Amino acid sequence: MSSVYETLLDKVHQIYDLEKAARVLSWDREVSMPRGGDTARIQQLTTLRRLSHTLLTSDQMGDLVEAAAVELNGVAYESKQASLVRFLRRDVHNARKLPSDFFAHLTATTGQAGTAWKQARSDNDFAVFQPWLEKVVALQQAVVELLGYQDEPYDALLDKWEPGAKTADVRATFAETKRALLPLYQTIRERGAWVDDSCLHQPYDVEKQKAIAHYLAAAVGYDFERGHLGASVHPFSTGFARDDVRITTRYYPDFLGMAVFATLHEAGHAIYEQNTDAELTRTPLARETSAGFDESQSRMAENMIGRSRGFWRVHFPRLQETFPQQLGDCTVDTFYRAINKVKPGLIRVEADELTYNFHIILRFELEQGLIHGDLAVADLPAAWNEQMQATLGLTPPDDREGVLQDVHWSWGYFGYFPTYALGNLYAAQLYEAAVSQDPTIGEELENGRPEPLLAWLRENVHRPGRKFPPSELIWRATGRPLGHQAFVRYATRKFSEIYEL
Amino acid sequence: MSSVYETLLDKVHQIYDLEKAARVLSWDREVSMPRGGDTARIQQLTTLRRLSHTLLTSDQMGDLVEAAAVELNGVAYESKQASLVRFLRRDVHNARKLPSDFFAHLTATTGQAGTAWKQARSDNDFAVFQPWLEKVVALQQAVVELLGYQDEPYDALLDKWEPGAKTADVRATFAETKRALLPLYQTIRERGAWVDDSCLHQPYDVEKQKAIAHYLAAAVGYDFERGHLGASVHPFSTGFARDDVRITTRYYPDFLGMAVFATLHEAGHAIYEQNTDAELTRTPLARETSAGFDESQSRMAENMIGRSRGFWRVHFPRLQETFPQQLGDCTVDTFYRAINKVKPGLIRVEADELTYNFHIILRFELEQGLIHGDLAVADLPAAWNEQMQATLGLTPPDDREGVLQDVHWSWGYFGYFPTYALGNLYAAQLYEAAVSQDPTIGEELENGRPEPLLAWLRENVHRPGRKFPPSELIWRATGRPLGHQAFVRYATRKFSEIYEL
Repeated sequence: MSSVYETLLDKVHQIYDLEKAARVLSWDREVSMPRGGDTARIQQLTTLRRLSHTLLTSDQMGDLVEAAAVELNGVAYESKQASLVRFLRRDVHNARKLPSDFFAHLTATTGQAGTAWKQARSDNDFAVFQPWLEKVVALQQAVVELLGYQDEPYDALLDKWEPGAKTADVRATFAETKRALLPLYQTIRERGAWVDDSCLHQPYDVEKQKAIAHYLAAAVGYDFERGHLGASVHPFSTGFARDDVRITTRYYPDFLGMAVFATLHEAGHAIYEQNTDAELTRTPLARETSAGFDESQSRMAENMIGRSRGFWRVHFPRLQETFPQQLGDCTVDTFYRAINKVKPGLIRVEADELTYNFHIILRFELEQGLIHGDLAVADLPAAWNEQMQATLGLTPPDDREGVLQDVHWSWGYFGYFPTYALGNLYAAQLYEAAVSQDPTIGEELENGRPEPLLAWLRENVHRPGRKFPPSELIWRATGRPLGHQAFVRYATRKFSEIYEL
Repeated sequence: MSSVYETLLDKVHQIYDLEKAARVLSWDREVSMPRGGDTARIQQLTTLRRLSHTLLTSDQMGDLVEAAAVELNGVAYESKQASLVRFLRRDVHNARKLPSDFFAHLTATTGQAGTAWKQARSDNDFAVFQPWLEKVVALQQAVVELLGYQDEPYDALLDKWEPGAKTADVRATFAETKRALLPLYQTIRERGAWVDDSCLHQPYDVEKQKAIAHYLAAAVGYDFERGHLGASVHPFSTGFARDDVRITTRYYPDFLGMAVFATLHEAGHAIYEQNTDAELTRTPLARETSAGFDESQSRMAENMIGRSRGFWRVHFPRLQETFPQQLGDCTVDTFYRAINKVKPGLIRVEADELTYNFHIILRFELEQGLIHGDLAVADLPAAWNEQMQATLGLTPPDDREGVLQDVHWSWGYFGYFPTYALGNLYAAQLYEAAVSQDPTIGEELENGRPEPLLAWLRENVHRPGRKFPPSELIWRATGRPLGHQAFVRYATRKFSEIYEL
């Protein structure tokens, strides 16, 4: 006779299979689907998500979770069993607040809003997107009401991506980060184009870039036996199982930086899921504990490893061999500075490490305005441009380089943007802790060997998956709650050195 | 208040969305999935198929279908509504004979058998596949018992792919076909290599072949706005919706025939689903009425159109432009003969039009032996080789070129193989009827314009989808039941002319 827990696990497998199937359909939508397929694809995604939501929120599921909690009384806190039941209690509780029909409506609307956003961006016409964004914002406000909150409405949305995080805390942390780093940015900006990155801006054969992308992903630990590197307009990472985690990158024929760092970034996401404990397979625990933690791993691969001197000391010769005409006369030091150039720019995904967080803080503030009702969608483009001018001293020439640059809002991903900056802070704090716990980690990285750092991350971040919420995982790994200090130290040291301040 | 029919339709949409989602997962498995993803993918497919089966066989569904039949009493026989209810009555009735757990077990087992077949084929080792094939055969025998039959067990399996067809009739038709055409094959074989096809066997740049494949698919009516041409080891066609029907092809660097005819073949399948009536979207009617009819359309595009003189009279110059070195000195007549060369060969997918059916008849006979218990799986390779020698006068040097060449049995597709030969017979009979109803169809094709034939097929075959079973559709389109005569006339005329008999 099977235990309550085993019965529960069987249901969980089904729900999780449906969620993963939906991810396959979304991946295909981005990388292969012909235009004609969009209507049917949205319907299929809606059906899959509605079914998984219906199964998750059924009375049977609620009863099973509670009965399993009783059955497992006394089982170790860190075990898969106890962690899964703990996770499900919260997940089922939250999911039950959203009726299945509402959830299906949400999926269908964001599916169509995504299509409208694409059109608007390609036409450079915010008016095409505006009515859809209004629908999405209204639905997000409805989500807030259904989920409920204690302090401020935005908390309810933030909690979906960064469980347990509070808007007020995030706001304070971001303010400290900005206070410490905006002056550094302004100093660098006043000094002008100190760093020469022209070596990156040359014709680079795309087929050769593909070979390099493959090589670099493997160099930061991405397992191609359990993955696949494709191409898409917006690079992304998505997992269909621990042993099938896909990434895409993007190739610019006249700029090497895009493919190199998009690949490292997405590989960083992917190795997180690839290295979750095998016993968590086919459960919701087999993934990142929060969007912020997920981003910390992509930024670790892209920046702490991929924009470090040591990494390129080892791998730059390979680049030179592949592109002798372009890089034959370039030194590794010139290359290192080029890939770390601080460039005031309008586009988030092209931002350097120093200014990236400012792009996020802007979005975080605008999102709160939209959700709290202080900012109308119609006024969003103007508000965007104004804040961009106030922070970075730049005004977008059009909405394509402004408010229309990101897909996230069309997907209903409100509360998600702040996790990008939280990811940078997590990454710096994890990195500092790893090096202080074991100094060879830093020394090896100086010699271009990220393996000890990756091993530390596997143990302290990847393996547990979602057994522990992010606030607990950061404590376990670093002995402190998340703060801005490590990132500020990291960025100040790095850019002061490069810019000789 | 919505009608019973509308409630039914909503359920049908969900079931159909799940089936289509499973197809996306299968497509991805063939074209992108890393090796590591296989275990999880089989689980996901099993979950999707189990769920759709559970929904289809629920008491609620059974009641809805019966209530809708009453509600729609008097609605025209040809209407979507009446046709859908007619189809569902049969489909639900059959599906209910298979318990969901059995169905899930079947899906999981064939998933694993597919993996074992791949391994066996790559290792050229039938023993790797044998235990899995034994499981699959036993499960197919169980399916026969669950579904039931009137005359002979194999009927139950044949009926899944060719609804209403009887094994005895198929056996008789195949015997007539073989009786009429085997002597023709033997005469040609005795005359030796009359036709020179060396022009096809040269180095052909794969990137240029891709451009040609794209061009040819469009030339037979494949709509790229609602499709996508990929590459895979085994070319196939699959539809995720009427407006998203994908095909794959395969490129050989030293043989042009593979890409050209695999592309035309799969395009033929795809235009069937692309041209089903738009009002049938998201229902099980929006696809081919049987596997045999589906194959008739692929063979129509590949052979009646794609291996005709008229087609190449128009398109050969494009081939010559693309491959001036290889084809500059070749005449269209030499090319026409080359692509129609009769070659005694071991491999079904490389067989010419004349010998193709013999490959099928061999499999049809072996399948019956396996299902009826007259042939043990262990004895299958020897039986295969013996029959191959008896019919085509050839013995495979190993199982890779013999019993391991096809994936179908690993998938549990018993009863499917005969539909390939039925497809050839349908195609010839449809072609003959079209030309006799409207002589301009044949004249235009002689001038390389397949459009009038395609228009006739759209109206008489594609548009109705699965409104009518195959035996009824062939009557409606040609005024006769399916027979061997049209194909025998077609093949005799064509090959007598080419071989000057």
